[in-house]
Amino acid sequence: MLKGEQTRKEIVTRALEVASEVGLEGVTLGALAQDLGISKSGLFAHFKSKEALQLEALQSIVDRFVEAVVRPSLTRPRGEPRLRSLFENDLRWIKGVRGGCLLISLSYEYDDRPGPIRDLLVRSQRDWLAVLARAARIATEEGHFRADLDCEQFAYQLQSLCMGYQYNSKLLGDRKAEEQLRGAFEQLMLSSRASSASPRRGRAARS
Amino acid sequence: MLKGEQTRKEIVTRALEVASEVGLEGVTLGALAQDLGISKSGLFAHFKSKEALQLEALQSIVDRFVEAVVRPSLTRPRGEPRLRSLFENDLRWIKGVRGGCLLISLSYEYDDRPGPIRDLLVRSQRDWLAVLARAARIATEEGHFRADLDCEQFAYQLQSLCMGYQYNSKLLGDRKAEEQLRGAFEQLMLSSRASSASPRRGRAARS
Repeated sequence: MLKGEQTRKEIVTRALEVASEVGLEGVTLGALAQDLGISKSGLFAHFKSKEALQLEALQSIVDRFVEAVVRPSLTRPRGEPRLRSLFENDLRWIKGVRGGCLLISLSYEYDDRPGPIRDLLVRSQRDWLAVLARAARIATEEGHFRADLDCEQFAYQLQSLCMGYQYNSKLLGDRKAEEQLRGAFEQLMLSSRASSASPRRGRAARS
Repeated sequence: MLKGEQTRKEIVTRALEVASEVGLEGVTLGALAQDLGISKSGLFAHFKSKEALQLEALQSIVDRFVEAVVRPSLTRPRGEPRLRSLFENDLRWIKGVRGGCLLISLSYEYDDRPGPIRDLLVRSQRDWLAVLARAARIATEEGHFRADLDCEQFAYQLQSLCMGYQYNSKLLGDRKAEEQLRGAFEQLMLSSRASSASPRRGRAARS
């Protein structure tokens, strides 16, 4: 790798470390340059603005997420096995990253801040929900899940459980967090299965 | 109200407005004093440090949450009606606050930052999960929910759905967010009911 490319990578890596502690807005070019022992003008040679660096850092973590969570699942058998693989990879990702999944944290940091960073984040999160919904749809095609399953709703529920797991385990330090996540995941799978006795919606039974 | 008390309240209110946009760490005494048109030493007369102000601001939002979401539910009939009331109040709270529930956002801002702010946040979130679990336990006592329901697991699932709703509606701007939340909530209620046909855990049926 060329020296310039390597420096650029080091800047992005350090920016992500800072972001995982204080958010992406807490990244400052001056502090980064100091941390890395390079001049501020040396850093500017790579990134013309804070936003350009933030965008590249965010894109790099989105790429890593796709590599670690999505891509390995695509070679797994269609239907429930692929969905389980997505779930396990996502759980490993959340557990493996210090401070939990930065993409989830950033979702809260940027939900109120319009701009290109928020746009990239929204695109990546929509892509992720679409991956989950598509995997659920394949499970209906394979006959694993019932044909009338609302696959977008399924994706929302699965993502919610993983977000709740991060909150339970990282903020509250709940030792039962993983057990609760797995219990809820199995409940979701069960209620989605073709053989499940559960009705499609609970409303009919509402008291 | 005395002039001093009023100023103190105005400082806290403004700090919460700032926090809802840039997080609680983004609150600075200098900028607050300028916003409110008071001197920095005037502000220091009320709060000796940034942390003291952050703690009071956080406590005030926790108090408001209890007043708006928890307290009105306690006079509702025990069991499912009280749980539904907690859910509806929480949903109204998330929808009503600009940028969504600050307590949820702060959970991500502080999950990696030890200190008194994180401690207060953790306490408040544990209290909230305990309120939900206790309401579910009462529902089992009343015979609305099945006796072997894992009430902590129920609380985690309900909280996860609400966090996912905030993410769906505020970040992704999904117009189906509320419908999905309500659908998932009814599914959770149904699977918790005494009359439900669902088995306790999905593991037995795991493929």
